[in-house]
Amino acid sequence: MRPEGRSMRESILAAAVHLFAQYGYHAAPLRDIARMAGIQAASIYHHYPNKQALLIEIMETYMVRLNVSLEHVLKEYDDPLQRLHEAIANHIRMHTTYKEEFFIIDTEMRALEDGHKAQIISLRDKYEALLQELLQDGMERGVFRQCDVKVASYAIIAMCTEVATWFRPDGRLSVQQVITSYRQFIAEGLLTTSGITHMPDERAHLL
Amino acid sequence: MRPEGRSMRESILAAAVHLFAQYGYHAAPLRDIARMAGIQAASIYHHYPNKQALLIEIMETYMVRLNVSLEHVLKEYDDPLQRLHEAIANHIRMHTTYKEEFFIIDTEMRALEDGHKAQIISLRDKYEALLQELLQDGMERGVFRQCDVKVASYAIIAMCTEVATWFRPDGRLSVQQVITSYRQFIAEGLLTTSGITHMPDERAHLL
Repeated sequence: MRPEGRSMRESILAAAVHLFAQYGYHAAPLRDIARMAGIQAASIYHHYPNKQALLIEIMETYMVRLNVSLEHVLKEYDDPLQRLHEAIANHIRMHTTYKEEFFIIDTEMRALEDGHKAQIISLRDKYEALLQELLQDGMERGVFRQCDVKVASYAIIAMCTEVATWFRPDGRLSVQQVITSYRQFIAEGLLTTSGITHMPDERAHLL
Repeated sequence: MRPEGRSMRESILAAAVHLFAQYGYHAAPLRDIARMAGIQAASIYHHYPNKQALLIEIMETYMVRLNVSLEHVLKEYDDPLQRLHEAIANHIRMHTTYKEEFFIIDTEMRALEDGHKAQIISLRDKYEALLQELLQDGMERGVFRQCDVKVASYAIIAMCTEVATWFRPDGRLSVQQVITSYRQFIAEGLLTTSGITHMPDERAHLL
């Protein structure tokens, strides 16, 4: 517990997040990270052995958080549609709240050295597996259509992740409105002929 | 028409595509691009004034191609669902065929200098506007549900773009199978209660 301010380690990490997101991992020198954190370049090595260690800590911390939050959704809810709704909300909230951190995860995988890359990829695989479990369960219980759960999980993750690139807190839509749009799109698609639960009268003549 | 081989300009561009995609724009030195293209580092300046010019040419060429191909879909077809189907197929095919080029477009925007960034962003805006026109028209003709066309266009672009990151030509699914999955997902969503056109018997008791 730190009653006030950040530890130096946290300040360095925050500076690294900001500079990696803005300029890219390779274009952000360690001395700039040190300067932004308010310490001498040489002192950074007391906290992190190298720039790679900063990248790994950022990626690992936020991938673990994302996994824990989805595991929580799976434990907390049983209904497949509610689980899907909560998973979409959770993914969009995490990615818009920790926008720079997830941008780094999404764009800097190739900057990871081999052993570390495998570790971060396994965290990503874990997340995909959790979402696929949710989809498979919903399919087996007849709530979701028969579909390729891998392909569906990739599509959901891609579209919900990308919200962070265009969402603006002061923009036209609130996070909650975006979440509502995405839930409907993912659950029901674009076609009006899919909108039976919302438009029973308009649909009746089709049967 | 070049009956055999590539021009030196094309060889340099191909080397730049490969190295930018593999190591990132900032981590790919011009001398490595020259070496891969089979010329002296100094000679590269006869063809391109600097590394930035290579990045712009890659991004501009493929964004223009993407726009032209979507314009073609809009001119060629009239039915909103068929237009949507063709737009999805076109986007996925372009992104899986020119995988490295679009990966660079998606990850290196921040590496563009200001004037050039505006130029590439306007090409991206153009593409989004074309897709939004398709969606708006389908909504007005009652084929698509009332929805936020901007949000829907971002979702479709994100999920179809990301196919390139996981698709393998020698993998479990063909490009056509992926396209079919995405078409169904985008048009009808995940819920079985949306699947009326495919499962009239199963749905009848719900009405």
